[in-house]
Amino acid sequence: METTTITGLVATTPRHLVTAEGLPITSFRLASSNRRFDRAKMEWVDGETNWFTVISYRTLAVNTAMSVSKGDRIIVSGELLIRDWDNGTTTGTSIEVSASTIGHDLAWGNSNFTRTTHKADTE
Amino acid sequence: METTTITGLVATTPRHLVTAEGLPITSFRLASSNRRFDRAKMEWVDGETNWFTVISYRTLAVNTAMSVSKGDRIIVSGELLIRDWDNGTTTGTSIEVSASTIGHDLAWGNSNFTRTTHKADTE
Amino acid sequence: METTTITGLVATTPRHLVTAEGLPITSFRLASSNRRFDRAKMEWVDGETNWFTVISYRTLAVNTAMSVSKGDRIIVSGELLIRDWDNGTTTGTSIEVSASTIGHDLAWGNSNFTRTTHKADTE
Amino acid sequence: METTTITGLVATTPRHLVTAEGLPITSFRLASSNRRFDRAKMEWVDGETNWFTVISYRTLAVNTAMSVSKGDRIIVSGELLIRDWDNGTTTGTSIEVSASTIGHDLAWGNSNFTRTTHKADTE
Repeated sequence: METTTITGLVATTPRHLVTAEGLPITSFRLASSNRRFDRAKMEWVDGETNWFTVISYRTLAVNTAMSVSKGDRIIVSGELLIRDWDNGTTTGTSIEVSASTIGHDLAWGNSNFTRTTHKADTE
Repeated sequence: METTTITGLVATTPRHLVTAEGLPITSFRLASSNRRFDRAKMEWVDGETNWFTVISYRTLAVNTAMSVSKGDRIIVSGELLIRDWDNGTTTGTSIEVSASTIGHDLAWGNSNFTRTTHKADTE
Repeated sequence: METTTITGLVATTPRHLVTAEGLPITSFRLASSNRRFDRAKMEWVDGETNWFTVISYRTLAVNTAMSVSKGDRIIVSGELLIRDWDNGTTTGTSIEVSASTIGHDLAWGNSNFTRTTHKADTE
Repeated sequence: METTTITGLVATTPRHLVTAEGLPITSFRLASSNRRFDRAKMEWVDGETNWFTVISYRTLAVNTAMSVSKGDRIIVSGELLIRDWDNGTTTGTSIEVSASTIGHDLAWGNSNFTRTTHKADTE
């Protein structure tokens, strides 16, 4: 599994839905443009923006829908999924993160936490 | 650098101080006992608890002191530092995480975010 | 920085070149299709293939060109760069890994190591 | 799971054994002393040495025993296990990495790869 941890800006209002089978899903676009170490130049540079679609399920999806807004700075940890798509008219590649955990990044602000569950949906 | 991402329970009330040079520091003990994949048995098992000392500086330290309480479930990402110590009477090894980011884990509850800064203390 | 560690199959013969400024670069396509934990289904499934372009510089590039062949199973650790491109005719997204380290994956075979340098090109 | 990727020097000759149940195990001590970003000083410094015990099983253990020697520079990716021990006389803490993958670090030398298996021992 390609797990990765990303910090960045929530670029779209999180979309929340519940499937016909009752599975809660919340997704949003994340823009990450941290400084990075350019190995060609061997120096730190301002990074270009990496764009991700973050997808969460179950309890994490419900809490994310209630807590996360466009403009928030967050941390996401999860698994990278690179999907090529073709909708008939155009094709493209989307880079998704299937989130195991999401949180507000306290390097950028404060947050109040209200615990709601005694056991997360874990594997 | 050994960077790692850890989710767990804040086990001690975060301690906050400002050094003589004006550097804010917040630290606390983190207990992580997620399920893990046991490669000897080739199966998922309940993990033993891994204990870490999390240390944060500057803006992250100030916000963490204001936002994080004992009992909170958090995500930390940062660099692993394994320090052997000897205080004259006993010796031991502490496992520290020098945090680049900390957040409340939304798999376990809700949080309200108030952004306070337009630029984090980054490298 | 979004650093990630990926294991997979070298899908193309590594290309090696030296720029006009004398910078060695080696690149190849990497296919990663490990089993992954599907959070929607809450179960392990065979993963679809994630495709990456791996780019290395300097000493790592020279050694990779000499040691890595199409068909090898490797580990790569480095920084994720998501680049949108437009060559006039078509557009696309490439997912690059700027490698800090590459090695043959000993879960899949044996390797003999010959050390050539006393100091890697590090930051 | 706390997964981490570490590069470093193999500090002890790998020990290989097969348990009574037929499980191959290879272990060795790894010293990692890469440069690190000191967040207190906000600058890159030479790191102190982090010491790990690397443990591998099955095919990875067999190939590691055949391929890895004291003095080699390697990459390890796997899961962090912090174990407190007490042997009656003294106590201590060992930091183990349960390896999912090990490879020679091509930033430090060359390696020849001979593939021996068509399917790794994966979860």
